[in-house]
Amino acid sequence: MKVLITMGSDSDLPVMGQAAEVLKELSVPCDMRVVSAHRTPELLFEVGRTAHEQGYRVIVAGAGGAAHLPGMLASLSPLPVIGVPVKSRNSIDGWDSLLSIVQMPAGVPVATVAVDGARNAGILAAQMLATSDDALRERIISFKEALRDAVAEKAKRLAEATEH
Amino acid sequence: MKVLITMGSDSDLPVMGQAAEVLKELSVPCDMRVVSAHRTPELLFEVGRTAHEQGYRVIVAGAGGAAHLPGMLASLSPLPVIGVPVKSRNSIDGWDSLLSIVQMPAGVPVATVAVDGARNAGILAAQMLATSDDALRERIISFKEALRDAVAEKAKRLAEATEH
Amino acid sequence: MKVLITMGSDSDLPVMGQAAEVLKELSVPCDMRVVSAHRTPELLFEVGRTAHEQGYRVIVAGAGGAAHLPGMLASLSPLPVIGVPVKSRNSIDGWDSLLSIVQMPAGVPVATVAVDGARNAGILAAQMLATSDDALRERIISFKEALRDAVAEKAKRLAEATEH
Amino acid sequence: MKVLITMGSDSDLPVMGQAAEVLKELSVPCDMRVVSAHRTPELLFEVGRTAHEQGYRVIVAGAGGAAHLPGMLASLSPLPVIGVPVKSRNSIDGWDSLLSIVQMPAGVPVATVAVDGARNAGILAAQMLATSDDALRERIISFKEALRDAVAEKAKRLAEATEH
Amino acid sequence: MKVLITMGSDSDLPVMGQAAEVLKELSVPCDMRVVSAHRTPELLFEVGRTAHEQGYRVIVAGAGGAAHLPGMLASLSPLPVIGVPVKSRNSIDGWDSLLSIVQMPAGVPVATVAVDGARNAGILAAQMLATSDDALRERIISFKEALRDAVAEKAKRLAEATEH
Amino acid sequence: MKVLITMGSDSDLPVMGQAAEVLKELSVPCDMRVVSAHRTPELLFEVGRTAHEQGYRVIVAGAGGAAHLPGMLASLSPLPVIGVPVKSRNSIDGWDSLLSIVQMPAGVPVATVAVDGARNAGILAAQMLATSDDALRERIISFKEALRDAVAEKAKRLAEATEH
Amino acid sequence: MKVLITMGSDSDLPVMGQAAEVLKELSVPCDMRVVSAHRTPELLFEVGRTAHEQGYRVIVAGAGGAAHLPGMLASLSPLPVIGVPVKSRNSIDGWDSLLSIVQMPAGVPVATVAVDGARNAGILAAQMLATSDDALRERIISFKEALRDAVAEKAKRLAEATEH
Amino acid sequence: MKVLITMGSDSDLPVMGQAAEVLKELSVPCDMRVVSAHRTPELLFEVGRTAHEQGYRVIVAGAGGAAHLPGMLASLSPLPVIGVPVKSRNSIDGWDSLLSIVQMPAGVPVATVAVDGARNAGILAAQMLATSDDALRERIISFKEALRDAVAEKAKRLAEATEH
Repeated sequence: MKVLITMGSDSDLPVMGQAAEVLKELSVPCDMRVVSAHRTPELLFEVGRTAHEQGYRVIVAGAGGAAHLPGMLASLSPLPVIGVPVKSRNSIDGWDSLLSIVQMPAGVPVATVAVDGARNAGILAAQMLATSDDALRERIISFKEALRDAVAEKAKRLAEATEH
Repeated sequence: MKVLITMGSDSDLPVMGQAAEVLKELSVPCDMRVVSAHRTPELLFEVGRTAHEQGYRVIVAGAGGAAHLPGMLASLSPLPVIGVPVKSRNSIDGWDSLLSIVQMPAGVPVATVAVDGARNAGILAAQMLATSDDALRERIISFKEALRDAVAEKAKRLAEATEH
Repeated sequence: MKVLITMGSDSDLPVMGQAAEVLKELSVPCDMRVVSAHRTPELLFEVGRTAHEQGYRVIVAGAGGAAHLPGMLASLSPLPVIGVPVKSRNSIDGWDSLLSIVQMPAGVPVATVAVDGARNAGILAAQMLATSDDALRERIISFKEALRDAVAEKAKRLAEATEH
Repeated sequence: MKVLITMGSDSDLPVMGQAAEVLKELSVPCDMRVVSAHRTPELLFEVGRTAHEQGYRVIVAGAGGAAHLPGMLASLSPLPVIGVPVKSRNSIDGWDSLLSIVQMPAGVPVATVAVDGARNAGILAAQMLATSDDALRERIISFKEALRDAVAEKAKRLAEATEH
Repeated sequence: MKVLITMGSDSDLPVMGQAAEVLKELSVPCDMRVVSAHRTPELLFEVGRTAHEQGYRVIVAGAGGAAHLPGMLASLSPLPVIGVPVKSRNSIDGWDSLLSIVQMPAGVPVATVAVDGARNAGILAAQMLATSDDALRERIISFKEALRDAVAEKAKRLAEATEH
Repeated sequence: MKVLITMGSDSDLPVMGQAAEVLKELSVPCDMRVVSAHRTPELLFEVGRTAHEQGYRVIVAGAGGAAHLPGMLASLSPLPVIGVPVKSRNSIDGWDSLLSIVQMPAGVPVATVAVDGARNAGILAAQMLATSDDALRERIISFKEALRDAVAEKAKRLAEATEH
Repeated sequence: MKVLITMGSDSDLPVMGQAAEVLKELSVPCDMRVVSAHRTPELLFEVGRTAHEQGYRVIVAGAGGAAHLPGMLASLSPLPVIGVPVKSRNSIDGWDSLLSIVQMPAGVPVATVAVDGARNAGILAAQMLATSDDALRERIISFKEALRDAVAEKAKRLAEATEH
Repeated sequence: MKVLITMGSDSDLPVMGQAAEVLKELSVPCDMRVVSAHRTPELLFEVGRTAHEQGYRVIVAGAGGAAHLPGMLASLSPLPVIGVPVKSRNSIDGWDSLLSIVQMPAGVPVATVAVDGARNAGILAAQMLATSDDALRERIISFKEALRDAVAEKAKRLAEATEH
């Protein structure tokens, strides 16, 4: 029941590492790998075709510009693939990354999150695994409650600061 | 282990019905409901907060324009939510629907598919459930093989037609 | 006859505080609250449903990215809601914030101002209240005259500087 | 307590007439006028400067392309101005109309609704007047309940149709 | 035979001053004025209606965001109006300024140049006056030759630097 | 004192013919020519370099897609060049035509009008010639008055139709 | 010295067939194949890795939406790959197809032509082969002359029609 | 068998120099020249018409804003032209450069690479020449293998760093 986090380049690590972080917070095991659709196509094929045989249940894939990694993994693997559009140095403000990932043809979905939204990709991967893991779903519920409480705390502080 | 398909308006049915169709092809049970984030907020709340207690494991939500249904369900429910941007009559070519759904803030992901990509939303829902259901994963593998064979068949016919 | 200013996150305060400032200049009372559509949905509901019972007559709501706060408040409250698209760190240059707020479906309007246009949101809130408050309308007329005079002063200085 | 509905051209009438319709449903009196910022600038000035002296309390203004009517009326009048971007024949899919109306500079707000969203402009005008008119606010609350009931009815019919 | 350079705010001066500079290089007299369509509408009207009676033959107008100054001057004056979209602090990357200026309705043209293209606005103004001034046309021809020679010089230096 | 109207393809004639029409209404002589920047570069050069020697005082140029005709004529000729972005069959909604024409580098302006705005290009050409032709300026003033009267007439009819 | 034309789906044939047509006009042999990056990834790999061993010297690849075929072929093959963004039914006006193809990362170019520009892809393929084939370059020169003559002919007819 | 690298301005050199670098790595001779479509049209014509007679077999052309250099060279020369959209200071985030280069009309292709993608332009030029040069194709194959190995090395280091 592991998650595989892949990225097109190690320059995507500052963004994609956030997926690993949140999975750790939720106690979901994951591995990280650099796989470039365009520079290591053989590796792409091998990873795409064998991930589900190696204990992975969800793939997270981040890439920038003409981002083909998530879509090609979705083509090769029966696992659900979560795509993270990365606003890399060469991207046109993230538009190319987003459209290259989300606009997949019928038959081959990629579950796309926001530009640079790797943290959400990790949460989504956990939610997918939680479809059959009640304890994990409870941890997700607690996680959402903690989000709510953090905002409530900030809200309270703002209210106090602006009150007279 | 059911999927809940929701849509903001019954005018979204021609698009969103494709999610139900593909789930039927994959033998995954689902229900369909009209829930408008903007016109029936109470219903939205009730559905969002209780879906996971009623046997649903994945939510699919389609909406157009300033599309808030998928994001609000993701806010309320611990279940994974798949968002379908619908290119409705009032949408600016689908850009508003897409951005309103995919650009969710950290902590609350929506698994976004292509504009009008409801069929892919259904497949993705099945893939999520298949993370713990080997038989379903096998059906998904067969489904992908059928896709491949259909293209191969067309490819062959084109090759024959253009060959001399 | 108070205005309620809400924002999705306290990181929106530098922008949204400008609405409070201009309301103060116009002697219109207001309160500020952090309410996150995605992280504190229960609070959203409570605020949306009760604001008009607590003496508020206009709601100003700012949010970034897939910005659902203004639209959901407009769904829940009978009060006029003014939406401020915030160009937050995660926004695609403000396009997502703008479209998520302005493209509301028929029946549920949000009065949208420019990206980061919180000052204008405050002025607009005052104009709404002035529909039944002649003294406030007089203050708005004076406010506009001051704007005009400030530009006229700059125009004069430029004319003098470039004249020969 | 009347609403003034203006439009840049009589070709905008099919869209802008929807503002008048919904105001009639809500029993709010209104007048309609063609005023072109670019072709009848004198009329624009006269209307902008005198509307508040003629019993109007809100201005609704619709225009397409480089749409200057709402912003110029907001410049001239102390009244709140609601802008409707019209997707006219010469518009680039409504983008020019939307940006020309919503991106007003600090000091001169226009309350912008969705592209072709004249019906929402009418509702918003009524909400503005309701800030001091409890009976009108009650009618708006009923109006929203009717919206909710219409969706609930459709939701029910869909549920029955897809149930087994 | 003077050119009138107008701008919506003195913050546009660093850009708009470039129009004055190039007109000086071409020995075409010009005046500069701050005129805000939204904050000084009376001044706008006066300038628009009287410019042609005060010896001006071309108007250059720069503005940012929802930029109405060029279009309103074109509405009021029989003179040709050159519009400069300014990428101001509040502009969405210049898109709003550009579309608000260029997409004018039939009957009221604005001669639009590139975003922040004030230097070109000055050249264009000179070209318009040169339609009846052979000496000025000769200066424009020399000006273009100087441009060509400057590039040719750079080209030569690059050729020498990269040659072996 | 003639105007030269050029277009990249005879398929642009329905749009570009409107420039000729309005020039005829204003009694300004003009000629029309098909000149393709990409298919007839020699003709482009000849026309660009000699137009001002053949009695032309303004060039109007329309083209679609990657529209290089206006910019190249502006490069070659000392005359003012008015560019009309044409929304041709291969254009991406006119965006490519517009940006290819308006975003000219410093030194080489093109006076750009709205997408498909050939009628405005004709008016603008007349305004340029009127910088030294008082009788033509009077005709332009009358032309604008006729526009105003036509709108006033429509406004009156709408007022009568909606009055009670 | 053959060209391989590939497309993601047989629905792309009306567009992509134009590449074959123009190659035929230029007497350059070509084959056409349907290869889907997402539905037949094995075929993609085989074609990409072996095309240069089967006598092909240039690959033309057309695809729509999140178009990965051209980029993946460029990843796998040492041959130059020409990408044709196809404005398919599911594309957002061609933007997704264009950006998915053109924005390739450093090291793996795709020679991108206009949206639906398959005819140009064919010409470009011929130009690439002509780098070492003088006879073919001569045919390309004649081809361009024919283009020029066709435009000249139309230009002449327009001149005659509008002359007096 | 040389490549000619051209650019609209010497300010494009930091980007365009990357094309020369990669050609050097691949042992393909090239020359660099500044040629401005808009400022040195005569030079443009001369270069475009004679490049193929001077031993050049491919042209690379980079330009920003309304970028006409690649398209005009493609119009004038029978050689394949590779266009590099440069995100210059005056460009609207590269959109204008990209669309001005890629959206060429039927008959006159430009092989467009990514915004600022000059390195890829160099690789593509080499690939074109390799259509008839087996030794160069071998060098390209080695080049791609080196790319793959570099990514594999990074992938390995990341795997080691994140392994436990």
